[in-house]
Amino acid sequence: MTVYVFGHKNPDSDAIISAIAAAELLKVRGIDAVACKQGDVNPETKFILEKFGLDIPETITNVEGKNIALVDTTELTQLPSDIDKATVVFVADHHKLGGLKTTIPLEVYGQPVGCTATVLTNIFKSEGREIPANIAGAMMCAIFSDTVLFKSPTTTDWDKKAVEELAKIAKIEKPLDLGLEMLKVKSSIENDSALDLINRDFKDFNIHGKKFGIGQIELIDGSMAASKKPEILEEMKKLHKEGGYNTLILLITDIMKEGSEMLVVSDDITAIENVFGIKCDEQHCAWVDGMMSRKKQVVPPLETKLS
Amino acid sequence: MTVYVFGHKNPDSDAIISAIAAAELLKVRGIDAVACKQGDVNPETKFILEKFGLDIPETITNVEGKNIALVDTTELTQLPSDIDKATVVFVADHHKLGGLKTTIPLEVYGQPVGCTATVLTNIFKSEGREIPANIAGAMMCAIFSDTVLFKSPTTTDWDKKAVEELAKIAKIEKPLDLGLEMLKVKSSIENDSALDLINRDFKDFNIHGKKFGIGQIELIDGSMAASKKPEILEEMKKLHKEGGYNTLILLITDIMKEGSEMLVVSDDITAIENVFGIKCDEQHCAWVDGMMSRKKQVVPPLETKLS
Repeated sequence: MTVYVFGHKNPDSDAIISAIAAAELLKVRGIDAVACKQGDVNPETKFILEKFGLDIPETITNVEGKNIALVDTTELTQLPSDIDKATVVFVADHHKLGGLKTTIPLEVYGQPVGCTATVLTNIFKSEGREIPANIAGAMMCAIFSDTVLFKSPTTTDWDKKAVEELAKIAKIEKPLDLGLEMLKVKSSIENDSALDLINRDFKDFNIHGKKFGIGQIELIDGSMAASKKPEILEEMKKLHKEGGYNTLILLITDIMKEGSEMLVVSDDITAIENVFGIKCDEQHCAWVDGMMSRKKQVVPPLETKLS
Repeated sequence: MTVYVFGHKNPDSDAIISAIAAAELLKVRGIDAVACKQGDVNPETKFILEKFGLDIPETITNVEGKNIALVDTTELTQLPSDIDKATVVFVADHHKLGGLKTTIPLEVYGQPVGCTATVLTNIFKSEGREIPANIAGAMMCAIFSDTVLFKSPTTTDWDKKAVEELAKIAKIEKPLDLGLEMLKVKSSIENDSALDLINRDFKDFNIHGKKFGIGQIELIDGSMAASKKPEILEEMKKLHKEGGYNTLILLITDIMKEGSEMLVVSDDITAIENVFGIKCDEQHCAWVDGMMSRKKQVVPPLETKLS
């Protein structure tokens, strides 16, 4: 039996690195496991994989009849369309339960922490298994990425503890320096088209039967994106129309200022403004102080206040 | 914050005992937690609770606005109808994922073992927390109940290991003797009406959009139910019609013979017969050798072969 391990569409560093880590966990348990991905890796992830000498996982599209392990999501919108014809045997996640139905009893590990790599660190530990040094280093970076260097409100003590332990295993003396280096790679957007930037960390959500698309770009300095905003807005308007979205939201997060510009294109922009208590300018844009997390600060208010 | 902890409707011993155990876990973590139940406890559960001096949990019906922890199920059909208005913060289960959507990231512990009490034993252990002796004894009984004294194919090494550890904590020298005593209580059906027997361990399932009801009675000697079969069949026919069921199945399991009589009332009995390779007699009844588990041997073939 081969288990194919992968995370959500439009993979971020956690979706890729946690697929590698979960495949490793299954392998040391004696199961044939292959780390996979749904979509291309972003520059930050590429930097991490190269840094620790890890291969880019192969791409998976059809899962019918396959045994699969999921990391970092159980949202049907973020999974292959034939997921109901696969046998899910393992899930590790740090999000809400997304409505996935499985065909057999399975292993599920969910924890309300900042990163799936933290959940996997805990599983390795509770089973008394060692994480290989290069995978530990990559997992540490995934946690830095998901928690925005611990600045995101999703950060928990578990994430900090995991980073400490993973850094020790990977023999990284100055974890934060590596985190900042990684952040600089992530913040480099000169070579990205407006559409690249929207898609960089973009997820579809079904909110009360309506299609929402929510993306996030995290930059050391938010103003780096200023010159690209008009073009991004045009692409968002096009995507909103052509993609059948009720609402598109893009967070341009300024990590140092600890807040985000929200770009909103919606069938009902006033409703969205009311959810967040904002007023968008002519560029469909509003600054929101302290807004760092899609998962914790964007999706839940949309779900509770729009019903 | 108070967390209300409960299992599925028509609670069996695992649903009740695991609610008590999970509430204890949350309490020792410093959270105010209350063990609850959806429906009356059965004679076996009552025997266990009395044996270990544990209170019968209170009944919960409305969960709107409440924080809740679920044990032994994530099936929407087995949860309160207003579950979507509750905040689920914790799940421990040993079944497949049932399609539950939650509003926030949460703790989920699922393992493909024989009993939720085994999953909880593992959580207590991985957190280095002690299980009180009386709760450990009850958890041991829940594992014996769910695995039918380790005869069910759902039994895993984890369950056997958990029973060993729990017996030690509860200072029970002959666990199997207690298991048999419990089984005798479970097998006493003289005072039960036909409807009581159907409902004893009965669960609704949504299988490809159709309503299925599947019950199980476990007896040391299956022939003990022989005289009640005609009456049970009448009640099943009534329930099939009045409850809007596509199919009703009742397993009368003979623990010593290690098999079950399947009673089937269905809109399409031939389809059900084909799924299990059986031919029912005039009493809608067929003996199936080795059939011990609804979860592992009834629900999955219905889901895969009826599609």
